[in-house]
Amino acid sequence: MAARRGRRAAGADTRDALLVAAREVFAESGYGAATVRAIAARADVDPAMVNHWFGGKQYLFAEAVLAMDVTPSDVVGASIEGPLEGLGERLALHFLASWDSAGGESMVALIRSVSTRPEAAQALRELIVHDVITALGERLPGADARLRVTLCGTALIGLALGRYVLALPPLLEHRSEQLAAMIGPTLQRYLTGCLEFTDPPS
Amino acid sequence: MAARRGRRAAGADTRDALLVAAREVFAESGYGAATVRAIAARADVDPAMVNHWFGGKQYLFAEAVLAMDVTPSDVVGASIEGPLEGLGERLALHFLASWDSAGGESMVALIRSVSTRPEAAQALRELIVHDVITALGERLPGADARLRVTLCGTALIGLALGRYVLALPPLLEHRSEQLAAMIGPTLQRYLTGCLEFTDPPS
Repeated sequence: MAARRGRRAAGADTRDALLVAAREVFAESGYGAATVRAIAARADVDPAMVNHWFGGKQYLFAEAVLAMDVTPSDVVGASIEGPLEGLGERLALHFLASWDSAGGESMVALIRSVSTRPEAAQALRELIVHDVITALGERLPGADARLRVTLCGTALIGLALGRYVLALPPLLEHRSEQLAAMIGPTLQRYLTGCLEFTDPPS
Repeated sequence: MAARRGRRAAGADTRDALLVAAREVFAESGYGAATVRAIAARADVDPAMVNHWFGGKQYLFAEAVLAMDVTPSDVVGASIEGPLEGLGERLALHFLASWDSAGGESMVALIRSVSTRPEAAQALRELIVHDVITALGERLPGADARLRVTLCGTALIGLALGRYVLALPPLLEHRSEQLAAMIGPTLQRYLTGCLEFTDPPS
């Protein structure tokens, strides 16, 4: 379909218009049902501008709704290459490096969003389900792949809460690579180890 | 020292007066420096009333400042008896059982408090340092006991955030005993296993 006459030019005001439109459409439809096409139409710009300015729906969402400097997709994308054996530690390393460089305030703001606005919690849940649990789960064998990835997420978000929000001293006294080495085996067990939750055979 | 004349009687208004006084004194002094004596004096009641109505400073703090239905001290107290080998799973079981019965809204409220009010984050940090890291750390050998206990805390708070705040589907599909069995080995490794963060010998 040809671009309509009168559409906004592809300048910085296009970017701002997309952010405003995205907040509206995500709020109305939720993350899963909101489409790039609908957001672009609301902003009166070409849908290609979403990729041009944000790199995709998930990044637009992260910036517009959650004010996130680090997206789960970034961390997963940076970690997923390589053998399955080291995936746990790579996830921990990239997660901590990303959030350390973004600054702890970003994580505080994110946690504040999801604990004060139910629609933000729902939106982040959908983002995680779509972009992390599904993407990473495809790397894992077995019917419990989504559970395994989710458990990894709890380990990472708990570490972030302790380090950036509660600022617990033992977590501030170690470099991110040290912490990644400590929780890496936990992530790896969640990803590929025995979860030990089945009832023992009688 | 004898009770002053004119002190409040030991009724329900004493309890309310202690809550009001506690919020003021904790805000002024922080959790660590605030004393039961100072709070009781502010409320114009006998210091013994703090134990009578709340069971101790930590419970008064949890109710007055954080509106917590479950205190870390409860979970630690219920878990700490027994052999060190099963401590990880006992902690996970008691943590989840307590928060499940309190209802997820309590955890949402707690996370909201610490992410929106820096003084609440500081107060919870002090509560955790005093009543969890120190108390539980005394059970563990080694110089890194506080780090080990803190890592356990991150595993538990991350699970709570995923289950109660983000409501991630794979975490809702399992009973608390199943989840405890899954994360129990993680806690146990943090408590008594190899943390693997020292540089390898060259």
